[in-house]
Amino acid sequence: VSVVTRTVAELAKALGAELEGDGSLVITGVAGLEEAQPGQLSFYGNPKYKAALGATKASAVLVPRDATGRGQATWLRVGSPHLAYARASQLFSPPRAHAPGIAAGAHVHATAQVDDTATVMVGATVDEGASIGPRAVLYPGVYVGQLARVGADSVLKANVVVADGCLVGARCLLHPGVVIGADGFGFALDLEKPEHVKIPQVGIARLEDDVEIGAASCVDRATTGETVIGRGTKIDNLVQVGHNCTVGAMSILCAQVGLAGTTELGMGVMLGGQVGIAGHVRIGDMAKVIAQSGIMRDLDAGAIVGGSPAIPQREWMRSTALFARLPELQHELTQLKKRLEALEKKDQTP
Amino acid sequence: VSVVTRTVAELAKALGAELEGDGSLVITGVAGLEEAQPGQLSFYGNPKYKAALGATKASAVLVPRDATGRGQATWLRVGSPHLAYARASQLFSPPRAHAPGIAAGAHVHATAQVDDTATVMVGATVDEGASIGPRAVLYPGVYVGQLARVGADSVLKANVVVADGCLVGARCLLHPGVVIGADGFGFALDLEKPEHVKIPQVGIARLEDDVEIGAASCVDRATTGETVIGRGTKIDNLVQVGHNCTVGAMSILCAQVGLAGTTELGMGVMLGGQVGIAGHVRIGDMAKVIAQSGIMRDLDAGAIVGGSPAIPQREWMRSTALFARLPELQHELTQLKKRLEALEKKDQTP
Amino acid sequence: VSVVTRTVAELAKALGAELEGDGSLVITGVAGLEEAQPGQLSFYGNPKYKAALGATKASAVLVPRDATGRGQATWLRVGSPHLAYARASQLFSPPRAHAPGIAAGAHVHATAQVDDTATVMVGATVDEGASIGPRAVLYPGVYVGQLARVGADSVLKANVVVADGCLVGARCLLHPGVVIGADGFGFALDLEKPEHVKIPQVGIARLEDDVEIGAASCVDRATTGETVIGRGTKIDNLVQVGHNCTVGAMSILCAQVGLAGTTELGMGVMLGGQVGIAGHVRIGDMAKVIAQSGIMRDLDAGAIVGGSPAIPQREWMRSTALFARLPELQHELTQLKKRLEALEKKDQTP
Repeated sequence: VSVVTRTVAELAKALGAELEGDGSLVITGVAGLEEAQPGQLSFYGNPKYKAALGATKASAVLVPRDATGRGQATWLRVGSPHLAYARASQLFSPPRAHAPGIAAGAHVHATAQVDDTATVMVGATVDEGASIGPRAVLYPGVYVGQLARVGADSVLKANVVVADGCLVGARCLLHPGVVIGADGFGFALDLEKPEHVKIPQVGIARLEDDVEIGAASCVDRATTGETVIGRGTKIDNLVQVGHNCTVGAMSILCAQVGLAGTTELGMGVMLGGQVGIAGHVRIGDMAKVIAQSGIMRDLDAGAIVGGSPAIPQREWMRSTALFARLPELQHELTQLKKRLEALEKKDQTP
Repeated sequence: VSVVTRTVAELAKALGAELEGDGSLVITGVAGLEEAQPGQLSFYGNPKYKAALGATKASAVLVPRDATGRGQATWLRVGSPHLAYARASQLFSPPRAHAPGIAAGAHVHATAQVDDTATVMVGATVDEGASIGPRAVLYPGVYVGQLARVGADSVLKANVVVADGCLVGARCLLHPGVVIGADGFGFALDLEKPEHVKIPQVGIARLEDDVEIGAASCVDRATTGETVIGRGTKIDNLVQVGHNCTVGAMSILCAQVGLAGTTELGMGVMLGGQVGIAGHVRIGDMAKVIAQSGIMRDLDAGAIVGGSPAIPQREWMRSTALFARLPELQHELTQLKKRLEALEKKDQTP
Repeated sequence: VSVVTRTVAELAKALGAELEGDGSLVITGVAGLEEAQPGQLSFYGNPKYKAALGATKASAVLVPRDATGRGQATWLRVGSPHLAYARASQLFSPPRAHAPGIAAGAHVHATAQVDDTATVMVGATVDEGASIGPRAVLYPGVYVGQLARVGADSVLKANVVVADGCLVGARCLLHPGVVIGADGFGFALDLEKPEHVKIPQVGIARLEDDVEIGAASCVDRATTGETVIGRGTKIDNLVQVGHNCTVGAMSILCAQVGLAGTTELGMGVMLGGQVGIAGHVRIGDMAKVIAQSGIMRDLDAGAIVGGSPAIPQREWMRSTALFARLPELQHELTQLKKRLEALEKKDQTP
């Protein structure tokens, strides 16, 4: 249970908000408009919740700059209520604190370097020559391989694996079961034996700062060179990033997305759930791909596409609507054919 | 190897079956009609296996109430042979037994409560204030977080993670690598920095009783409140359940299904493999979704749909059939056009 | 960093290559044509890299038997440059060496048999009666269940699980988080309670020799009998193989593929990423399935298919092209209808 408290006036200052109402009220947490209780802060960003805004029990509400019709609640006017809500929520819900140090049941190799302020929980393993940065936290079952590095303030939840030589930046958050640096999927066919001959995967995987990766997601190491996840990119659960991919900064990859090898994503790319992208494809900055789509060719910056194989969103929507009406179209075609035949017959009748 | 033995008469009683034949035969196990040997019990539920029923070496066979033409094997007439077979199979194949107690190499926090009859295997970790119910079993590599609870008779296989505060009901079975309570995927965009600001995920994930979850599947914790998996629901491997989802009781989610955030599934819903469901969508009771489909809108109770985006099954089948025939339809269209042009020409000829 | 060195002449001999140029040059590693530095070996297999071949700094290049126009670099003529490159790369990048023995913090049951030359790293667990073959390596967090067997020279990366009774052949490589032998997904519905009654999964999963499985992939145990992955088959990350599947030798399953229960794959089958195959389906030898496709029926040997449900590749390509043009087709249909109506009207005008 949170024990953080702030007056509304303090919050207004912290969030750069314009205060309207009683600034002396004490806030102890955040909640949605409908669930909020007195003493809580909420937010209003979408006109469809106008009624909820009027009825809320929240003591204070984050609202857009131009909102009108304040009732009882104190208002905090901001540019983006949702963003301010996220920041306020962080204030009231700080992440779990960890005592620094290496737990008795942790396994840290003699040659590994663990910062004094880092936490290595029981059952975590840090292998030869690896390094763990200041205030980083390794949960039970974590394995950090030979010469791998974990940056300052990064948190590796239970059973995360960072394989040999791989690099995790600062302030990264890796959820349970994440695997950084498994071998890329590369083989050469020897038809005579026959045998798939493994191509050694001697590159690494590197996460820049502020990357978050969801449970059981995998970022493969490069064949040679690096697989890179750019600064501030957020990846959901069960996502596959193949060898030698480059994911730009600030991108969003929803759950179960799959990137084949050597895929290149620009900055701020958004991929819906279960999207698949073929190898050696380039996706431009800020491109958006609708869930379940399949991308086989390069996409321009700012493109919005859907379908498998994907086409521009607008066309995809029209085509999917017509797909559902194919039986009807076929019927029309058949009717036209009959009418045409009738006319042709008449025409040939002397 | 099983050492359980039962006479056919004992089995008939236990399964509520009507006995036809020799009830004194001793049964030591179950097997399919074709693989079964003398001393084994089999089942017949589908007319297409009529020949196999006649030829089986099984000593006893579970058959429908109205089956006819018994040969050598003793018959046990029941309402559902498949169901009776499942129960008989459980009888002959009891799950692995575990000695109660906390293994020497297990890590149980001083403040955690582990029932005396529970088993905590070597290399499992139970964190601060967590509680483990009677006869529950934690395999090696399991992590049960702060204040998390695991109910009676639940089994957490190797490397399962139940994150801080999350709740697992009674008689649940979580296969290796399952992650309960990773953070939901929620961010607010700060365009000025730019930065995806994390929205703290302070809710929990809760599994009701008798839930089974397949290997490496993930159920995210709620942003606030609960993500819930209802009583008796069975989830296959590599499934993603997003934050704040509610999955009703008795549902079936096949492998690699993905539910985005705040999806609501009714009771007895069946989702085929690789199905994806968008956020904030409601799926009615007993609805069925064909494998690989994508759901973007609410579904009525009992609906059966397919495709991405999904449409009613019957229409989907017709449309997919016509999809394969699109080149043919286009050809017909072209032919009609030509014939029409010919007629028009004639018509304009004086 | 690799310390392996070879002269070009030594490499030519080892790779069965025909040498053209200076054989005394010393090679210390491999790299792509563009990245390669003097002292490195590269390969040229695709005419579109002809310019890069001319410009490469590599000391030696593997080229096809019939290549022409050698510049400075020494050439090694081989049947398949890519294959020779894989073998050369293995030579220069041997896998990480491990000291044999059971680490102090490893958990090996008294009845388990671990070969003297095998490595069991800290935090790995080998359960009752299990056996680990010569030179096998178990990383931290690995769990090998009761009576399970791991063959010679197999490597199980961090947090791999091989469940009770399951068998892993020789020279297998299992990446972090792989789960072999979770329960198959089988239940019988008891409508009266209602309840999904679990069908005990008493079979095993068996990997033949030389199998590689990617991070977080799952191979379920059989209901009875075996789930089998054939010799030399390579499986990428996050793949689901259901109970009682049989995957033939030398097959390739790309990331996030899902096989439902009792699916049968022939030899040399290739499945693109995110492909799904329904239960009880047979896929013939050497069949290929395009990424994201869904297979609901048997496929002949050598078939190449795409789409969901899948159709022959050629038809699929034509149909998807027409799918994108559906609005256009509909428009044409409407125009034809109008023109036909006009003709009909005239025709009826006396």
